[in-house]
Amino acid sequence: MTAKRQGDHSASTPAVILVTPQLGENIGAAARAMLNCGLSDLRLVNPRDGWPSLPAERAAVGALELMPPVKVFETLSEAVNDLTMVFATTARDRKMVKPIVTARQAAAEFRAHVAAGGKAGVLFGPERTGLLSDDVTLASKLITVPLNPDFTSLNLGQAVLLIGYEWFQAGDATPPSQMPLNGTLPATKEELQNFFAHLERELDECGFLRNLEARPSMVRNLRNMFQRADLTEQEVRTLHGMIKELTTLRAPRRRG
Amino acid sequence: MTAKRQGDHSASTPAVILVTPQLGENIGAAARAMLNCGLSDLRLVNPRDGWPSLPAERAAVGALELMPPVKVFETLSEAVNDLTMVFATTARDRKMVKPIVTARQAAAEFRAHVAAGGKAGVLFGPERTGLLSDDVTLASKLITVPLNPDFTSLNLGQAVLLIGYEWFQAGDATPPSQMPLNGTLPATKEELQNFFAHLERELDECGFLRNLEARPSMVRNLRNMFQRADLTEQEVRTLHGMIKELTTLRAPRRRG
Repeated sequence: MTAKRQGDHSASTPAVILVTPQLGENIGAAARAMLNCGLSDLRLVNPRDGWPSLPAERAAVGALELMPPVKVFETLSEAVNDLTMVFATTARDRKMVKPIVTARQAAAEFRAHVAAGGKAGVLFGPERTGLLSDDVTLASKLITVPLNPDFTSLNLGQAVLLIGYEWFQAGDATPPSQMPLNGTLPATKEELQNFFAHLERELDECGFLRNLEARPSMVRNLRNMFQRADLTEQEVRTLHGMIKELTTLRAPRRRG
Repeated sequence: MTAKRQGDHSASTPAVILVTPQLGENIGAAARAMLNCGLSDLRLVNPRDGWPSLPAERAAVGALELMPPVKVFETLSEAVNDLTMVFATTARDRKMVKPIVTARQAAAEFRAHVAAGGKAGVLFGPERTGLLSDDVTLASKLITVPLNPDFTSLNLGQAVLLIGYEWFQAGDATPPSQMPLNGTLPATKEELQNFFAHLERELDECGFLRNLEARPSMVRNLRNMFQRADLTEQEVRTLHGMIKELTTLRAPRRRG
């Protein structure tokens, strides 16, 4: 752990435990996905091609250097010894009486457990076969990721990404929707009313609103359209200028 | 579109539009991620290495054969012509006055739009540079995926997976938590009470509960522990049997 490493949150975030992973490439992809999601406690149980791994470093695209060192264990039992809550990911029915939670539910339970001072971890099985049933009995719950039942094939990196993504979202405060104004301000309703007055005056002038029966609903539609656009004051100025220039061009003909 | 293809939902699910993708491998990973999430309308704008692509087919792990044929366009404008709602994914600040939504919020808006008969699409830019600003102006909103701000680097396949994952979750009815019982039934409270009576009788007998002051809280703790385990009737039978055998072994010594 060098000074260059980012703040080590590995004690308070769930550990990712890859059981007998086969390809270094997949371990690297898992590390990258973990760091994307603020996870950094990566544990390997008996990796087939050993550790460290050049293919893993390549696939991690720098993530491994930014994380605390990967811990390698000979048995799964050793890898989970310090954990207080362990869930196992599984794609197939285990015929076990064990609660099955979605990735989103697991994230909520991990957050609550970690907030209460616990240390959580998630087990991922080897690429082809998944976890052995004996491995699964070390977990208190199973996680399944709801996906298209006709095509659930996920690689290891993607599975880690989805579990990690839900973990990150469960603690993230990004507003679902926001409007960047880039230094300008939202238009006041007065500015908008002034623009409507300008626009409608010119539309009356040129005859666009000449049908007096249709006029009220046409005006309402136009106003609704611009209201919906959440205009900034700068945009309202642009619209004023646009109308002005359009009518100036028209003016000679009208006055002629 | 052959008979082998799965039900084509591409008309009612958002299109994924990859703008000038560079590596076929990434297009294939995107296709795989799409099918994982029930998406199947894949559109390519001017793919650098042409189409079809062998690396794409390899990376798709069979997904491309199960989807309607990929549509290839020369310009983004053509690719979005039939769409009624287009959002653009972007990692960096665009300095545009355009709403920014999370992937989860985008999924909710897509679901609502599609339910109202609209046709949605999501733009993904080329691997290195992302979307051009002129491309972004074809979209009504921007999507950003909340991730670790210190390490947001996602590859194209992962970005498509996260957007698709939220789409799928937004329409998925999997209960957050469920308990598979594998043919047995949950134990009734009467069965549980009978087990407690059996257990506590034997614990009184052997002296484990001899401290009469501590007895009530010890009994409560034991009962709570077994209540929490959500036992099945079969498990209760197993526990009865276990207590019986344990005390039978003990019996000769006790009687001797």
